[in-house]
Amino acid sequence: MPRTNFTRALGEMSAQMVEMNRLVAHAVREANRALGAADGALAESVISGDALIDAFYAEIEQNAIDLLARESPVASDLRLVVTALQLSASMERTGDLARHVAELVRMRYPELAVPAPARETMTEMGRLALALVEGAGEALATQDPGVSQDLEVLDDSLDALHVRVFETIRLEITDTQEAVDLTLLSRYYERIGDHSVGVGRRMGYLATGRLDRPGEDAHAVTVA
Amino acid sequence: MPRTNFTRALGEMSAQMVEMNRLVAHAVREANRALGAADGALAESVISGDALIDAFYAEIEQNAIDLLARESPVASDLRLVVTALQLSASMERTGDLARHVAELVRMRYPELAVPAPARETMTEMGRLALALVEGAGEALATQDPGVSQDLEVLDDSLDALHVRVFETIRLEITDTQEAVDLTLLSRYYERIGDHSVGVGRRMGYLATGRLDRPGEDAHAVTVA
Repeated sequence: MPRTNFTRALGEMSAQMVEMNRLVAHAVREANRALGAADGALAESVISGDALIDAFYAEIEQNAIDLLARESPVASDLRLVVTALQLSASMERTGDLARHVAELVRMRYPELAVPAPARETMTEMGRLALALVEGAGEALATQDPGVSQDLEVLDDSLDALHVRVFETIRLEITDTQEAVDLTLLSRYYERIGDHSVGVGRRMGYLATGRLDRPGEDAHAVTVA
Repeated sequence: MPRTNFTRALGEMSAQMVEMNRLVAHAVREANRALGAADGALAESVISGDALIDAFYAEIEQNAIDLLARESPVASDLRLVVTALQLSASMERTGDLARHVAELVRMRYPELAVPAPARETMTEMGRLALALVEGAGEALATQDPGVSQDLEVLDDSLDALHVRVFETIRLEITDTQEAVDLTLLSRYYERIGDHSVGVGRRMGYLATGRLDRPGEDAHAVTVA
């Protein structure tokens, strides 16, 4: 493949990642709406839509491997291909987590899955998780490592809400099934945030060639 | 690098992955013991030991990228390097999950973190999760795709216990904090199983060149 074709292939891979992230953001947005409104049909569409995200993952991974085999990229080109491998896996996982939110909506339908005392906090967690995924999309599209800092700040807020959910359970929830549901939902959103932060950090790697260790998921257990 | 040196470098990478898995299995084993005995000191050692697992991840990833840059591997050599990138990430994550179990032990110390009605099930979950990690190590060491099938069977048993924990919560647990703790622990073990199954599948990829999509974590929410 002549060099210009290789450059084009790399550009296509970047565009694929941006598009995959757009699908993932859509899944999170719809899962949020389904959760807030106990919308079973919308939850079903999130669940069935996950297959398309999985297909993107498979395609990006195969393209990355093909590019490595055919083009033997080095330096920043190699970093881009390796990053595509890693971030497509992370986005696929984010899609799974949005699906899990939707699965819980379906399970509790026609009831609202989130009990009243935690509703406001959970809505805000969904909003922040979506902002993080959208921010990760911006990091992917612009390859601007500065976006990474903004994501860390958003994620700190999300982690604080994760703690608040456990406080709410302790103080205001008496039904153990509600406690289970809130624990899972809060954990799903918290993990979505972690994955998006990871995308930002990997974009920093693309720009600098320096690998920041993820060190994610430091706040897994925050039950006081 | 002459070809024989490259072959040696690939062999070293495989050995590193086996060694990393051995550390991860150790973490899961010790987390299980700490959980069963409310052993705070053991929990601390699992928590602090996670840094070594993270360091292995960083080293394997850097080695993989260096090999891609220097050697431009193709075919099965390329697959091995790409697999090393993916599986080191997955093993790092399994180490995090073992750490989370230990963190919960520390948080509840000197009390037992698992309430009596769920103790037997949780012990069995820990045993199965460890067997899965050890099986993943066998898959790594032997590159035998047949091990993958055994892992799927073990993981089905682990998923069944995950469901049983939610049943136990529903029928026998009245304290919401106990419900939260059990939900998190069960989810951690269930995810450890998924990661190990993923290792087995990727080993199949090494042997066949055919990428089975992970499709993992199908049983995230199983509260009836």
